Amino acid sequence: MKIIRDPLWKNISIADELFEACKTKAFIRLQNIRQLGPTFLTYPGATHTRAAHSLGVYHVAMKLLDSLCKKGADTFITESGKKSFFAAALFHDIGHFPYTHSLKELSLEEHETLSARSVLTPELSGIIYNYGAEPEQVAAIIDHNLHSDSETMFYRKLLSGVLDPDKLDYLNRDAFYCGVPYGIQDTDRILQSTIPDKNNGIKILPEDMLNVENILFSKYMMYKAVYWHKNVRIATALMKKALHSAITKKILFPEELYQLDDYSVFSLLHSRNKFDEYKCVLSVENNQLYKTVFEIPFDETNTLHLKLENLDYRSEYEKELSQKLKLENCDLLIDVPERISFESSLLIPGSTVFSSKTVQDFTINLRKIRIAVKPEYSEAIMSSNILIEKSDLM
Amino acid sequence: MKIIRDPLWKNISIADELFEACKTKAFIRLQNIRQLGPTFLTYPGATHTRAAHSLGVYHVAMKLLDSLCKKGADTFITESGKKSFFAAALFHDIGHFPYTHSLKELSLEEHETLSARSVLTPELSGIIYNYGAEPEQVAAIIDHNLHSDSETMFYRKLLSGVLDPDKLDYLNRDAFYCGVPYGIQDTDRILQSTIPDKNNGIKILPEDMLNVENILFSKYMMYKAVYWHKNVRIATALMKKALHSAITKKILFPEELYQLDDYSVFSLLHSRNKFDEYKCVLSVENNQLYKTVFEIPFDETNTLHLKLENLDYRSEYEKELSQKLKLENCDLLIDVPERISFESSLLIPGSTVFSSKTVQDFTINLRKIRIAVKPEYSEAIMSSNILIEKSDLM
Amino acid sequence: MKIIRDPLWKNISIADELFEACKTKAFIRLQNIRQLGPTFLTYPGATHTRAAHSLGVYHVAMKLLDSLCKKGADTFITESGKKSFFAAALFHDIGHFPYTHSLKELSLEEHETLSARSVLTPELSGIIYNYGAEPEQVAAIIDHNLHSDSETMFYRKLLSGVLDPDKLDYLNRDAFYCGVPYGIQDTDRILQSTIPDKNNGIKILPEDMLNVENILFSKYMMYKAVYWHKNVRIATALMKKALHSAITKKILFPEELYQLDDYSVFSLLHSRNKFDEYKCVLSVENNQLYKTVFEIPFDETNTLHLKLENLDYRSEYEKELSQKLKLENCDLLIDVPERISFESSLLIPGSTVFSSKTVQDFTINLRKIRIAVKPEYSEAIMSSNILIEKSDLM
Amino acid sequence: MKIIRDPLWKNISIADELFEACKTKAFIRLQNIRQLGPTFLTYPGATHTRAAHSLGVYHVAMKLLDSLCKKGADTFITESGKKSFFAAALFHDIGHFPYTHSLKELSLEEHETLSARSVLTPELSGIIYNYGAEPEQVAAIIDHNLHSDSETMFYRKLLSGVLDPDKLDYLNRDAFYCGVPYGIQDTDRILQSTIPDKNNGIKILPEDMLNVENILFSKYMMYKAVYWHKNVRIATALMKKALHSAITKKILFPEELYQLDDYSVFSLLHSRNKFDEYKCVLSVENNQLYKTVFEIPFDETNTLHLKLENLDYRSEYEKELSQKLKLENCDLLIDVPERISFESSLLIPGSTVFSSKTVQDFTINLRKIRIAVKPEYSEAIMSSNILIEKSDLM
Repeated sequence: MKIIRDPLWKNISIADELFEACKTKAFIRLQNIRQLGPTFLTYPGATHTRAAHSLGVYHVAMKLLDSLCKKGADTFITESGKKSFFAAALFHDIGHFPYTHSLKELSLEEHETLSARSVLTPELSGIIYNYGAEPEQVAAIIDHNLHSDSETMFYRKLLSGVLDPDKLDYLNRDAFYCGVPYGIQDTDRILQSTIPDKNNGIKILPEDMLNVENILFSKYMMYKAVYWHKNVRIATALMKKALHSAITKKILFPEELYQLDDYSVFSLLHSRNKFDEYKCVLSVENNQLYKTVFEIPFDETNTLHLKLENLDYRSEYEKELSQKLKLENCDLLIDVPERISFESSLLIPGSTVFSSKTVQDFTINLRKIRIAVKPEYSEAIMSSNILIEKSDLM
Repeated sequence: MKIIRDPLWKNISIADELFEACKTKAFIRLQNIRQLGPTFLTYPGATHTRAAHSLGVYHVAMKLLDSLCKKGADTFITESGKKSFFAAALFHDIGHFPYTHSLKELSLEEHETLSARSVLTPELSGIIYNYGAEPEQVAAIIDHNLHSDSETMFYRKLLSGVLDPDKLDYLNRDAFYCGVPYGIQDTDRILQSTIPDKNNGIKILPEDMLNVENILFSKYMMYKAVYWHKNVRIATALMKKALHSAITKKILFPEELYQLDDYSVFSLLHSRNKFDEYKCVLSVENNQLYKTVFEIPFDETNTLHLKLENLDYRSEYEKELSQKLKLENCDLLIDVPERISFESSLLIPGSTVFSSKTVQDFTINLRKIRIAVKPEYSEAIMSSNILIEKSDLM
Repeated sequence: MKIIRDPLWKNISIADELFEACKTKAFIRLQNIRQLGPTFLTYPGATHTRAAHSLGVYHVAMKLLDSLCKKGADTFITESGKKSFFAAALFHDIGHFPYTHSLKELSLEEHETLSARSVLTPELSGIIYNYGAEPEQVAAIIDHNLHSDSETMFYRKLLSGVLDPDKLDYLNRDAFYCGVPYGIQDTDRILQSTIPDKNNGIKILPEDMLNVENILFSKYMMYKAVYWHKNVRIATALMKKALHSAITKKILFPEELYQLDDYSVFSLLHSRNKFDEYKCVLSVENNQLYKTVFEIPFDETNTLHLKLENLDYRSEYEKELSQKLKLENCDLLIDVPERISFESSLLIPGSTVFSSKTVQDFTINLRKIRIAVKPEYSEAIMSSNILIEKSDLM
Repeated sequence: MKIIRDPLWKNISIADELFEACKTKAFIRLQNIRQLGPTFLTYPGATHTRAAHSLGVYHVAMKLLDSLCKKGADTFITESGKKSFFAAALFHDIGHFPYTHSLKELSLEEHETLSARSVLTPELSGIIYNYGAEPEQVAAIIDHNLHSDSETMFYRKLLSGVLDPDKLDYLNRDAFYCGVPYGIQDTDRILQSTIPDKNNGIKILPEDMLNVENILFSKYMMYKAVYWHKNVRIATALMKKALHSAITKKILFPEELYQLDDYSVFSLLHSRNKFDEYKCVLSVENNQLYKTVFEIPFDETNTLHLKLENLDYRSEYEKELSQKLKLENCDLLIDVPERISFESSLLIPGSTVFSSKTVQDFTINLRKIRIAVKPEYSEAIMSSNILIEKSDLM
């Protein structure tokens, strides 16, 4: 047994056999991928990595399943299944690459698919096997497209549900490293009080609703203050614009992204810098983020807003708009935040103070369309009022 | 300048002249009044006192006004007014007596009135005067029935508003001492970012709404987990029942309560033990709380529920019910939580995800009518189903 | 299983049967005894009780023994012995009375003896028996004068050793509630890494020395900043002076002290106030502590210093000195801190940076003889230089 | 005024003009240099950067000087001097490059010299000037070789003394990010209680000694648990061995190192990989650290130990030893920790429990000579006993 220190959970115990995985290239890559990408430009403390998060999820998953076993889960799970679940927790993000979540609009592979594939490589599957778990099951817990039996289904529901180890780690950890008090969950209590449910992972008792409400509200707060902080949105949109353009122009192929980390993504782009939007990459690398010149809440009834959700349409619109503003296309961007669910579907009506309506309001309150331009042009554009007059967005 | 250690705010600086007040009998009494009354029976860590809370409010008030002064408040406030505000923060609860908040239904004096009166006693007013503040102004900041000028009005609004030093201390402190993560506020940031408003105390900018929402949600969580925890409600209801009976029977006079602390309230009751409900006092003192046998959400459309809000009606109803159940009146109690506002009136529609409706839902979700009986009778009554059959409450 | 919240350890699990003990009069008394006595006059946050500490020691003891069992202790301990150990942790202070530690110089019973006696009362022994532990063994783990077998010896050594649950709770808890950073221990790590030793409780590996050194240094810091803070010493010395006088004059009998709490000790003294030193009691109750007029490090080579360690000699010396200074005897006191060991005997020479000499230096640095007088006389005496001239103390 | 979030100090206020510096290439480089180099391989949370540390030192320096000004320092310092001090705090590490501290044995430039030089570049000096500080003075505060007047001397002593902003940030921050409780300082109290001394920076009052002792002991604990953790020492020694060899063989020039960050140092070495010790670089990058096969406390009376402190001698000795052991030179290394002072010279004898002897013991206890080899060879060598027989080291 090896004990690893962690600022959040203090001491993480891990079996020697599984600890071997932490010295593989696949895992070392996660040590060079920051959990929150370019957020550290705004929150300088937020340098925590996917590796630290993965260890944290593993730790919470251990505590959770140990607690469920004391309450009856031991009657329907196997010893190797248990270990597969722990390994799945540790490797659930092993396929992550920089900006994974924000590049979903480019037609890349799902990171769960990549994680499952990585789990099945000889190196990792050998380690998993030595540890006493089943590589195939580990992969199937992570990637919901793979075939699964009922025990595997149980683990899937534990690993991504309302109160899951992933959320319990990331909300706590992201808040901790950013230095904000919004994401703190009553983790220990949740882990001690949760009841197993063979078909649904965990059963949410009426007295657990407090914790579900807290997680929901924390997510809203973290989106508002951190995940969708204006600067984070813009840095991400800049990278997306550059990568979308490079892929469209066949300067870059999606497969090339999958093995990168936060630094090699820049090195690669430096070596393929013959396209206009490469400038966007430099503006992120040098922390010269574009400035917002126009901002409006996303409006479900506005046809233009709905069309702008499509990345190709958005690119065309950016081109037109930059021409009107006499800017180069690479000096302007439009950001449209993704639709996020907040899992309101998981709430049981009547049992909580948060109606579906309230949870929808969270999303509405958060989603804002922004137009941003290179810093040196922002003042002129703001004072010209030209954007305000463009009534089609309003 | 004297520095006082505090587990929450770490170091509280206080002028030597004002620190003298901490050695008066009035303040020492606060050291023997637990901030959360009988909550320590359920949360053994919650032994923090009104004295520690008062010092905390003083500390936050200092930080708040210092920050507002850097942003223009110094143009419309006076030096002595400032000190009056700090003293008002320190003495705002000096008139508190045990169970103040829960005894509101008995016709006692408001604790603000008592605090203001205490401030004007020779001992405290002398100290306040030496410190450089105006005793009359200090009293008027605390007691809104007293005459006030516009500067005093400004301080009143600072001391009790949406983001006020009282709430910022008690939500944080109560959570801290109970060991729950729900009440934590982004205090430092709130204090640094708040803008003064001569007429309204502070101006709530759109970007401050996050903090207002957090305070609202924290209050809801703290009510659910702590302030209105079942055991806390019942312990309080037991004391209320005993005191109401003693006052009605002229065994005790309200004025006798005002100078008590957590221990002398019991001593006094021990010496006036010739009434049936005295048993309720012993059940609290010995941590033998009554057990809930019936619980139903308060329903605004139920006439009986509305009538039960009246303490005298409730007492009569308790008597009847105990007869039906063949119990002594003192062995049964009905608890009806007070109406609480959550200050939804202070929310600016459109600027927040919390609609008035959501905030009302908080209250509805929290208010529950409970019937409780002496522990030894609870099982028999629960199994008899006699209460479930009483359809008038349902 | 019941879960109790605790600000320090967050969630403490306790068997329902054992939890019953928390509702006995014996335990409720601990809820009214502050862990650090009059320290709250100086550190207003320090209102934590012997009850909260007892629960904490129980929690740490559980974690410790569970961890030792995973490393082989399960081969030589019994199930009922384990429960006896947990009960002993919970009840180790059940015989505590106010100022227990500081009244050691009066010939009172040891609090361990009182705790053991309390454990054997019908009420507690019944609960212990229902829980599955042996009352006699529980008593013997606490009171080293009782007969013990080798398993009981093992528990004794666990409960009071270099890295014991008592110290791990009180250093952490006292620091936490006072708001100082000095007492924090690496508890989780210590509990996870400690190795069982059948004869000595735990084995201290070379890599554990870091934690032993940290505990030693923390104790030194906590003595300096908190336990022996000037005001704490003086408040305690005032109570000791009053109680010593009352007992000597047969106004009070030691047995009367054993069942008291922080409040009833004052009530009792109020009802027996016909002795001069009663004034000392009031000065503590009203936070009008005597002021230090003379302070000198305790000197092992000074005959007078050595004599002053004897309480009776000290009382005589106080009388003489007060006459010389034209004060009433009750207006002056001399404080001589007890000898403390810092368990330097437990250190293995060569294995630590702290030589016996360094550890002795801790004690020397901390022990200071002080003369204090009623606040109104301190200035006159200080300016008169009369004490400085008294060369026999220097 | 800009407010930056920080997990350690929560909210750092910085003037807009000075904040511009955070967007320069020089500062962005610090965002890619981990404060503790390869420590994150052992403590995965320790990914905090020189940039975050620099902002922290700036914050503590502000608090410190503001507090000193309230206690009289404002009478002998100028407004521009004050700003120069703040800028010096922010830029004191701007010349840092990867492994700066551990490469001191190679004859590279001091990082203070490089920092001062960076401060005087047009970009940074322009920002400093706009902010209202003097670039020359900023440089002179950082680099003690530059000319200084008495005010600058005062700032130098503030910035590197017994209780300086650098130590107060790094001990707290390193402990926080590693997840260990050893480095926590009573920062707020230190900052509030410290007294200015025109000639010596700050005056250490007897009651401050507690804090000095705490810093000393914390440093010892942090060295033992983190800074000189076996794995950290070996990772660092591997890089040192590779760089020393590359520089000796003129494959690399010292000047090339100065502008690197944690990632470009590896890129550069990948492009200059034609030397045997390049393998050492890969073992660090891939977390395949060499394993210790021999360890002995450094002995001041052992001539061989003394000779091994010299890097060139050590390299020769490594070569010989690897031949004897039939290993390639690049598969073995000897680590000899540097001499560290613990500033015992700053202690005033008699005022502290830490004698010079004790402080020397700290160093002796920490310094261990280690021989380590590639993981695959460690077992064979350990079992062969060949090293134990080499009596010259023992």
